[in-house]
Amino acid sequence: MINVNRKLFSRALDLAATTVITRGSIPILANLKVTANGALRLEGTDLDNWSCVELAYEGETGSFTLPQPRMVRTAMNTAGGDVVELGQGEEDTVAVRSGRLNSSLKALPVADFPTPDRIGFEDFSATIGATEFKQIARVMAAISNEETRYYLNGVCVRKIGDWMYQFAATDGHRLMVVDVPLPDAAGVLPDNIIIPRQWLNIVMARLSKAKAGAKLTYGRNAISNAEGPDFPLQSGGPRIALRGELEGITFSVTGKLIDGTYPDYTRIVPTSLNYAALMRRGDLAQAVHTLSALTFSKYRSVKLTFSPDKVKVELISPDLGQSVFDIEAQHDLPGDLVIGLNGNYLLRMLEALSGDEVVLNIDDSAAPVLVIDPADTAFKGVLMPVRV
Amino acid sequence: MINVNRKLFSRALDLAATTVITRGSIPILANLKVTANGALRLEGTDLDNWSCVELAYEGETGSFTLPQPRMVRTAMNTAGGDVVELGQGEEDTVAVRSGRLNSSLKALPVADFPTPDRIGFEDFSATIGATEFKQIARVMAAISNEETRYYLNGVCVRKIGDWMYQFAATDGHRLMVVDVPLPDAAGVLPDNIIIPRQWLNIVMARLSKAKAGAKLTYGRNAISNAEGPDFPLQSGGPRIALRGELEGITFSVTGKLIDGTYPDYTRIVPTSLNYAALMRRGDLAQAVHTLSALTFSKYRSVKLTFSPDKVKVELISPDLGQSVFDIEAQHDLPGDLVIGLNGNYLLRMLEALSGDEVVLNIDDSAAPVLVIDPADTAFKGVLMPVRV
Repeated sequence: MINVNRKLFSRALDLAATTVITRGSIPILANLKVTANGALRLEGTDLDNWSCVELAYEGETGSFTLPQPRMVRTAMNTAGGDVVELGQGEEDTVAVRSGRLNSSLKALPVADFPTPDRIGFEDFSATIGATEFKQIARVMAAISNEETRYYLNGVCVRKIGDWMYQFAATDGHRLMVVDVPLPDAAGVLPDNIIIPRQWLNIVMARLSKAKAGAKLTYGRNAISNAEGPDFPLQSGGPRIALRGELEGITFSVTGKLIDGTYPDYTRIVPTSLNYAALMRRGDLAQAVHTLSALTFSKYRSVKLTFSPDKVKVELISPDLGQSVFDIEAQHDLPGDLVIGLNGNYLLRMLEALSGDEVVLNIDDSAAPVLVIDPADTAFKGVLMPVRV
Repeated sequence: MINVNRKLFSRALDLAATTVITRGSIPILANLKVTANGALRLEGTDLDNWSCVELAYEGETGSFTLPQPRMVRTAMNTAGGDVVELGQGEEDTVAVRSGRLNSSLKALPVADFPTPDRIGFEDFSATIGATEFKQIARVMAAISNEETRYYLNGVCVRKIGDWMYQFAATDGHRLMVVDVPLPDAAGVLPDNIIIPRQWLNIVMARLSKAKAGAKLTYGRNAISNAEGPDFPLQSGGPRIALRGELEGITFSVTGKLIDGTYPDYTRIVPTSLNYAALMRRGDLAQAVHTLSALTFSKYRSVKLTFSPDKVKVELISPDLGQSVFDIEAQHDLPGDLVIGLNGNYLLRMLEALSGDEVVLNIDDSAAPVLVIDPADTAFKGVLMPVRV
C-alpha cells in the first residue's frame, strides 16, 4: 500500500484531473495513471493535453490506474483523515482508504493507459512568472470560439525583438496584442505558433500560483520506439509544456499546438488615425455596464457621440427603450461623428487594460478603433465598429 | 417626478420582482405597477401570486408601469447615485434617472395591469416568526416535483389541537411532518389546505427576515365589481397571504392554494416498530455524503447492515465499485436484517433534523422507516426503503 498526506493528495488529484474526461466514450481517459516509484506520479490525458503531477509518498512501489479522480477526491475529503491509503486491490480493483471510508474501486489495466506525450526534443524554453502570466492572460479574452476558423482558437506567439515576444488573439471583430519580455528565453521559437485556448486555460488557472514561476518549453515529442529503448528516438509533432512547483507538488501540462496559419494581424492595426478621445477607463466601463443591463440583446451595441468635453454613451434596446450615460472626455472629435461599438467587446477590452485612463483612436465611423492604455504601451487593442 | 432613496428602492424592486415574469408570453407581466400616492406602491404578478411592496417617497402622485424591474435595478445600481428619479415620460415611456444614467423606457398602459388579488374576506390569521419559518421550512424538502400528482406540490396544513397546526409534505417516497404551535391563531382554517411550493419559496426566502414576524392570512379574494364600488362585494376563491415589515418596506405576497385533496398521510406513519438504531446524526450524514460522491447514479441507494455497536453503510456503484463507511450505533437489530435507503432522501431527512442524534425505527427490510429526532419530538420523518 501507499500512504500519502490527504491534503497534499487532494491538491494533486485536483491538478491531475484537469485533463481527465469524466464521462467520455473512451473509459481509460476517465482514469489517472498512478506510478509510485521514489515519487508518486499521477498522469491524466484527454489525448490533446497531458498532465503530470509528482509528490512525496511513503510505502511500496507500484503502478495502477485510479478511476474518476474528482469523485475520489470529494469522497476522501468528505471522509476526512490525515493520511490516504492507496493500493492495488484484488481482482482488478484499487483500494482507497481515508478516515472511515474503505473503497474498492474498479480499475482498468495500467497497460491500457495511453503513452505519455512528453517533449523529447527541446527547441525553446523561457520562465513564465506572475508578471508574464498576467500579461498573456490579458489577450485571452479575444480568442475566437468559432470552430470553423479553428486557427483563431488560440494565442499566436512570435518573436519581435531580442527577448521580446508578442502574444496576439483575435476573433475577427477585435484584436488584442501584448508585448512580453522573456529575459531568459533560450533556443528558437518558430514564428506564429498558435497555443490553443484549452491548454492556456489549464495552465493559467493553476501554474500562475507557482512562486518561482513556471518553465515554458517548446519542442517535439518523442515517439516511443516499439522495438525497444534503442536510440535514435523518433521526433514527432510540436508540443508545448509548462512545468512548475506548487507547495510540495510538481505539476506539468504538455499540449499540442494548433496546426494552422495565423492571419497577419499586424495589417489590421491602424497606424494613422485622425482623432483621439481620452477618458477615465472606469467611467467608460461603468457607462457600458449600466447600459448593458437594459437590453436582452446579446451584442449590446453602444453608440458614442461627442460634444465638447463629453461623450454621450447611448444604448437603444428594441425591448426596453433608450438610455443614455454621459461621461467626461478630452477629445478632438467633431460633433457629427457617431461610432458604434459592441458593448461586450468594449468591456472585455477595458478589462484588459490596467491604467486609470483609456484612449480611443478613431478614424471615422467605419474604420477600426485603436484602444490604447496611456500607462502601458505593451498592450494594444483593436475594435471593429458596428452599425448603430 | 418621484424621488426615492436608491438603496431602499433597490430592495423594493428586488422584492416586487419576485412574481414578475421576465420573458413570458404576456408582456404586461414583465412590468410592475407603480402607484405613488402617500406611499410608493410596487405591484407585480405572475397571475398565481401577487406581490405588493410599499415604501416612502417624495414628489408627485401618479400611476404608471415600469418594465423589467430586475434589469432596471441592475442598471441603476451600476450607475450609482443616492436618489432615483422616476416618472411618466413622453409618448408611453417611463423615465428613470440615477447617477449619470438617464433612461426613457417603453411602458405599457397602467390600465392593462391585471386586477390585484387581495384577500377581501379574512377567515384566519396567525403570526409567523423566525421559529415558525424554520419549522415550516424543515418539511419543504419533501414536497413533490411531479406534476401529475399536483396536489403533492405543496405543504398540507391542518389543525391538530388548540393553537397547534401540523405541516406535512410527501412525494410518496418520503414524508416529513412537523407540529407548529401558532399561539395567536385566530379564526378558522379549513382542514388540509395545500399551500403551493412556489408561494412558500417566495415568502420563505424574504419574509423570514421580518424582525417582528409576518402575518399569515387565509381567506377569499374580493372579486371587483365592474358595475361600480357598491357592496356587497363578491367573494372569490381561497387565498393565502403573508405580510411583513422589512426595514422601511412593507412586503406582502398573496397566492392561490392548490385545489385538490391531500392524501391521508397519517396512515403511512408507522406506529409499532420492532427495532431502533440510535446514532450520531453527523456520522450518518458524513457516511452518506462520502459514499454519494462515488457514484453517477441519481438515487445513490445506500445499504445499511448491522453488527454489534456498529452500522455498516455501503454503496455499490455500477460504475466505480463498492465502498463502505462504518459508524457507531446503539441498536437492537439482528445481523441478518439489511435495509436499503435512497441516499439523497436520507440526507435531506437528516438535514431537516436539529439534534446531535437520530433514531431510525425499523420494522423489516420492506417496511417504512420512521426517522426521529430524540431532541425534538415535533418533527417526524418517514422513508420508504429501496431494494439494494
